Amino acid sequence: MDDQTLKQPIHRDARPPSGQVTTGAIEGSVKIWTSPQGREDIRVPFREIALHPTANEPPVRVYDTSGPYTDPTASIDVEDGLPAVRAEWLGKRGFSRVEHTREVRPEDNGFASGSHLVARCPAPHEVWKGQPGQPVTQYEFARAGIVTEEMIYVAHRENLGRLTMVEGAEERRADGEDFGAEIPAFITPEFVRSEIAAGRAIIPSNINHPELEPMIIGRNFLVKINANIGNSAVTSSAAEEVDKLVWSIRWGADTVMDLSTGRNIHNIRDWILRNSPVPIGTVPLYQALEKVGGEAEKLTWEIFRDTLIEQAEQGVDYFTIHAGVRLQHVPLTARRTTGIVSRGGSIMAAWCLAHHRESFLYEHFEDICDIMRSYDIAFSLGDGLRPGSIADANDAAQFAELETLGELTKVAWAKGCQVMIEGPGHVPMHKIRVNMTKQLSECGEAPFYTLGPLTTDIAPGYDHITSGIGAAMIGWFGCAMLCYVTPKEHLGLPDRSDVKVGVITYKIAAHAADLAKGHPAAQIRDDAISRARFEFRWEDQFNLALDPDTARAYHDETLPKEAHKTAHFCSMCGPKFCSMKISHDIRKEAERQEGMEQMREVFHEQGGKLYLPA
Amino acid sequence: MDDQTLKQPIHRDARPPSGQVTTGAIEGSVKIWTSPQGREDIRVPFREIALHPTANEPPVRVYDTSGPYTDPTASIDVEDGLPAVRAEWLGKRGFSRVEHTREVRPEDNGFASGSHLVARCPAPHEVWKGQPGQPVTQYEFARAGIVTEEMIYVAHRENLGRLTMVEGAEERRADGEDFGAEIPAFITPEFVRSEIAAGRAIIPSNINHPELEPMIIGRNFLVKINANIGNSAVTSSAAEEVDKLVWSIRWGADTVMDLSTGRNIHNIRDWILRNSPVPIGTVPLYQALEKVGGEAEKLTWEIFRDTLIEQAEQGVDYFTIHAGVRLQHVPLTARRTTGIVSRGGSIMAAWCLAHHRESFLYEHFEDICDIMRSYDIAFSLGDGLRPGSIADANDAAQFAELETLGELTKVAWAKGCQVMIEGPGHVPMHKIRVNMTKQLSECGEAPFYTLGPLTTDIAPGYDHITSGIGAAMIGWFGCAMLCYVTPKEHLGLPDRSDVKVGVITYKIAAHAADLAKGHPAAQIRDDAISRARFEFRWEDQFNLALDPDTARAYHDETLPKEAHKTAHFCSMCGPKFCSMKISHDIRKEAERQEGMEQMREVFHEQGGKLYLPA
Repeated sequence: MDDQTLKQPIHRDARPPSGQVTTGAIEGSVKIWTSPQGREDIRVPFREIALHPTANEPPVRVYDTSGPYTDPTASIDVEDGLPAVRAEWLGKRGFSRVEHTREVRPEDNGFASGSHLVARCPAPHEVWKGQPGQPVTQYEFARAGIVTEEMIYVAHRENLGRLTMVEGAEERRADGEDFGAEIPAFITPEFVRSEIAAGRAIIPSNINHPELEPMIIGRNFLVKINANIGNSAVTSSAAEEVDKLVWSIRWGADTVMDLSTGRNIHNIRDWILRNSPVPIGTVPLYQALEKVGGEAEKLTWEIFRDTLIEQAEQGVDYFTIHAGVRLQHVPLTARRTTGIVSRGGSIMAAWCLAHHRESFLYEHFEDICDIMRSYDIAFSLGDGLRPGSIADANDAAQFAELETLGELTKVAWAKGCQVMIEGPGHVPMHKIRVNMTKQLSECGEAPFYTLGPLTTDIAPGYDHITSGIGAAMIGWFGCAMLCYVTPKEHLGLPDRSDVKVGVITYKIAAHAADLAKGHPAAQIRDDAISRARFEFRWEDQFNLALDPDTARAYHDETLPKEAHKTAHFCSMCGPKFCSMKISHDIRKEAERQEGMEQMREVFHEQGGKLYLPA
Repeated sequence: MDDQTLKQPIHRDARPPSGQVTTGAIEGSVKIWTSPQGREDIRVPFREIALHPTANEPPVRVYDTSGPYTDPTASIDVEDGLPAVRAEWLGKRGFSRVEHTREVRPEDNGFASGSHLVARCPAPHEVWKGQPGQPVTQYEFARAGIVTEEMIYVAHRENLGRLTMVEGAEERRADGEDFGAEIPAFITPEFVRSEIAAGRAIIPSNINHPELEPMIIGRNFLVKINANIGNSAVTSSAAEEVDKLVWSIRWGADTVMDLSTGRNIHNIRDWILRNSPVPIGTVPLYQALEKVGGEAEKLTWEIFRDTLIEQAEQGVDYFTIHAGVRLQHVPLTARRTTGIVSRGGSIMAAWCLAHHRESFLYEHFEDICDIMRSYDIAFSLGDGLRPGSIADANDAAQFAELETLGELTKVAWAKGCQVMIEGPGHVPMHKIRVNMTKQLSECGEAPFYTLGPLTTDIAPGYDHITSGIGAAMIGWFGCAMLCYVTPKEHLGLPDRSDVKVGVITYKIAAHAADLAKGHPAAQIRDDAISRARFEFRWEDQFNLALDPDTARAYHDETLPKEAHKTAHFCSMCGPKFCSMKISHDIRKEAERQEGMEQMREVFHEQGGKLYLPA
């Protein structure tokens, strides 16, 4: 507390120069690729964090969402897009090439023109479509007993590239509390297939998004996180928009939702998809509303349908569809403290009320399924009636919609689609568990994907934290993916710093959930960083951290000298007082006294009733 | 995400000028005092947040820890100290004035001299002591059936000054999950007395700290938080040190621990106590160690005893005493991943090992009780063997110590002392609950006071968040006070900004816990801010926030104009898309359609099976 003015978190990463995106290795790690046994054609990315030689430990391998951007050898040019890693797999599945793709219309880009129009991404892009009678979706392949390359890929990815069970896996599983989840000690492609076939997991992977590095969402896998991005009112360059994606995945976003509105959304989406190694989700209703000038009552099924095809051909991997907001649910919201807070939900409620008709999304749900199946776009069934305040948590409107989502899940499965379910919102801690339990039972164990939930309403400016608490808990209870909330929630648009803080907060929540579930490998990183801490390996501590740059910067504020990075003390206690140093002395002293076992005996003989043998 | 560089959280509060401390009302609130019925001599502070006239709601009253510093009419001079609000109450209890107080010695201030020596605080201070045979401690008064002024004060404070039960109290209690706690709908002084008599709550309140505004720690009361402060290596002024306290309580710290080491600690402690309206806790072992040049093995009972008396006469309200670290526990830590991470624990372990003797704190525990009883200093029984990593959570060393703390709790009660118990540390989510359960059963329901716990080890730089998750959960399960963790934990010394972020994070955790426990009044603030949000009363939203300055600054980054503070939209959706606005339209439309009840009937008649009557 020695600074004259209030200081700010320190970040080493400035925004990249115009026309470029953020590249370079994440501090202290190298990018590697490994392959499942016998499948050298499948190359799965990880990061490896090498430790100081004195540690005498192998490098720590971590899950990596960052794509080629963190590979110093990769040549990154957003105009070229990313390599089409799935092209060969998809090419063998007999899909039909779409010759006459939907033409881009002025309204797709909000009538932007001239210098205001962002150019289309020049990266090559063919459009494909599945046909009736052939398996198209991962769900259909799984039901047919076929293991796809995507399934092999995610199995290897979830195992962090290990070819055999990690040591101590069974013990850690037994030690955890998984609330009925069943994470195996080792993930096989067949296990992935069976989870997808059961509807318990999805691999969002549009057949028109060949650049995708597949990932899986399900409660028997690592907990995932999503980051939302949106276009700026004034876009200076397409690269700037792509960089929002790149920045999010650099810090660990597993999927990214493009929630853009206004001008250029079609073309910017093109740039994002061609440059995205992670699944991209959208809410097609937002673009449809743009096309009718923002007036909900003017929406039609035809405009919505056209928007689905527009985005499907571009390669969007999952769509939020608010088909659970039915006419009959609307009155349930009228006495709420905060009404309807979901944009999609309020648009559909306004439409239903204006026409006094059942939602066209609900009425055309099977048509939507047919479209989404043809490209393998996963459903993210939107929670349009999620509570926007503690007062409205778990109310009749919310649960009525959840029951409808359960009904729709079964329809979508029958149509061959992959499905996940969106969830709240604002929920106090004691009402979180029932959300998870009810979602599992109503929706046949389809993966749950929640926003937070925020555990109190009173901390605008800190809602990454109010929601991070709820996210960690619901992740533990079985939620498969956590949608991040940034510090700007309720107040404004997140900037680069907010996005990073939001992503790191949610990586914490997801990892805390993995630990508590007894994930067989999650604790490896905790143990490595704790050993580094105990042995004063400061560089290893920074490098093993979720955010090495901030950890290092905070340390250097107090003890900037290079020599302090190897010092056997830190700024909290200083050299005299260091408790870790005393622990080392204890260990040495114990060893000196002819070994611990003997020492234990001595203590035991003298011992009081409280002595517990280790 | 439109900024060229990474931005920082925005704070309006710069450090005050030299020689002064932070003063002025917290944005958007006024300080008030109210009295319990018939006791106009007892004035309890609150803050009231007035709402916009269109709200047609009374002001929202909130708990206030900030002392006279946020009262614009108060004259603040750190040389004078604060008014002695308890002097009259204490004066009637028949304590003995200590004529020959302990003299300050050079080693008390780390041999600081000349210009390096911080002067003593000139504020007047008399020293008093209780005698055997008379009730001294709140515990002794409570056991004797006597309701003290402190008990009346905290009852009124916990009720937020209400004279009758808050509306809906019983419903909220029934709606919560309190894991066996029993928070009444209305707190009476008699209830406070009975909780203290049962050992379930404490009012830390040294009879030599008359400036204290009493507060209570117990699981049947609001969850409290503690902030740690420590002196700087180079102190520019006593006011700068006092300001660390003032800054912490401004944002909501209920108690403050002074963990200073090195030079000037005695004199700085004087300044802090004379200017503190909240209980001050210390770890006397730290100062004792300073007196023997930092060499643990040179510690003696005599030096420790002298330090207790030194600090007792100054008015410290609670002492962390690491008497649970016994010789026989030391070997249990030798194979831990991170050994002993508590400073106090490692000092005592080093002492035990060096002398191969039982801890002098354990052996002299009854003597310690006699001293602490004489001044009514509460025990905070230290968890010297708390786990410093996920790997070490809930291990034999930790639980062996906890069992010893249970044994010592009963000794301290028999001696008439108030007791709380310190807890971990690093604990994964699924192992938190058992900590609480075991603490309650081992320690006879004495209040639990935990550091976090941190739910993962992998996020240095964000440990306010890793621990905020654990803190919210253990608070819900029954922990009475949460010790904050700042973003600098494990890395360096917190600055002004870190302290604020740490305090706000822990206010979130404590409040989320109160909500989940079904505290009868906790949700009032959430509901008020949610109504403000729904009605676009931006100023009310900011003012009701835990940190009004940051909420306002974040909003103004995107929409700085004054007019936007009354705009019926925000930057997230903009005017066309605002879901809250659509909700208002729905409500109006619903009202137009001849009232909701009738409308429900209509829907019900048309209704599908999913319709749920509200």
